Amino acid sequence: MGLDGDDTLWQNETRFQLTQTALRDLLRRHVPDADVDTHLAEVEMRNLRIYGYGVKAFTLSMIETAIQVTDRRIPAADLEVILGWGQKMLSAPTELLEGVETALKDLSLRYELLLITMGDLFDQESKLARSGLADMFKGVEILSEKNVEAYRSVLRRRHIEPGEFVMVGNSLRSDIAPAIALGARAVHIPYPLTWHHEQVPDDAMPKDGWHRLENISGLGELLDSF
Amino acid sequence: MGLDGDDTLWQNETRFQLTQTALRDLLRRHVPDADVDTHLAEVEMRNLRIYGYGVKAFTLSMIETAIQVTDRRIPAADLEVILGWGQKMLSAPTELLEGVETALKDLSLRYELLLITMGDLFDQESKLARSGLADMFKGVEILSEKNVEAYRSVLRRRHIEPGEFVMVGNSLRSDIAPAIALGARAVHIPYPLTWHHEQVPDDAMPKDGWHRLENISGLGELLDSF
Repeated sequence: MGLDGDDTLWQNETRFQLTQTALRDLLRRHVPDADVDTHLAEVEMRNLRIYGYGVKAFTLSMIETAIQVTDRRIPAADLEVILGWGQKMLSAPTELLEGVETALKDLSLRYELLLITMGDLFDQESKLARSGLADMFKGVEILSEKNVEAYRSVLRRRHIEPGEFVMVGNSLRSDIAPAIALGARAVHIPYPLTWHHEQVPDDAMPKDGWHRLENISGLGELLDSF
Repeated sequence: MGLDGDDTLWQNETRFQLTQTALRDLLRRHVPDADVDTHLAEVEMRNLRIYGYGVKAFTLSMIETAIQVTDRRIPAADLEVILGWGQKMLSAPTELLEGVETALKDLSLRYELLLITMGDLFDQESKLARSGLADMFKGVEILSEKNVEAYRSVLRRRHIEPGEFVMVGNSLRSDIAPAIALGARAVHIPYPLTWHHEQVPDDAMPKDGWHRLENISGLGELLDSF
């Protein structure tokens, strides 16, 4: 069974959004009517091709946004503050979501668990180490992009048949859709916040092959029913 | 056989050093007697624990250094220039070192080649894609740290015995020493420039188990002699 990390096992998007709120407040002191969110989203999308995902990419895009939105008038001291936010995000403790520890303890006795996560290699390994969950996983796969090809290559390398694989995660786009496309099953456990880049309307998804749970606590029971 | 990427197959450190020279020139316009190199090295070492390796980490450390060395007096426009250097490093074509393409074409017919490289996942995958070498590798391992444990886990996962494995790279610290410690062989192909963090004196290395080549062109012949 594959499990996503960010916003499936531990808090992630909340931190990004809290930091983005702080950025908005900081930049509005310089440019009161700036549309910081839109500008940041554009910068992030433009940089995705060269930076990929993760906190370092986000920090660089925040700095770029701050410089551009203020028309280069932002003082270096404020940019230093933004740098510090990124460092704080990278070193903060990993906050597990409710029920994760109990659910994984149970699941790890009955299934082979793989952590399949996306983003910055160093940051993800560090988060896993700080989570205390590392021992429950048989393997860890950190992917630069979670698409069908990436999942296919993980399953092939690990000699897992798609028909016997279940992917569990909070993102329809990155966890659920590619797993179904491969012929695996998928369990969607939504998280209240979803990054704009990850949003997919339900009706754009296949009807079959996936399930939705409110909370990871129900996962064991659902899997038993398969 | 495992091959390192940066400065073994393609240019890497040269780009970092050219960018660092540009940073030195830029900061000296603000602080003529600043010891930029020393300050940057300190910032990089302090950040290694949270940023890991790679161009994004380097860019963030350059920005931090620029702010600190100028005592927060650097204009945002100059920091924008530094951001741009990072983006240029990440999107520049992958420049293969001399003889690499010919040597790999030959070796890939006779050995199973693994690319075993360190650093930023997204950047390394992108460099490999731009190198034109991807098809010659049976597998790719991008590690956040190249130590004995990391090599051991790669070999175990791929069912490779250390005794039948050879690691080839430019870094005594990251490519040669850990491979020998595992009981594998290693071939050191030095690169004229080595990042301070990677430097190891020859006499701190084991006497046996490794070889040194001037150029990758001699690798096939050396392997045949094993």
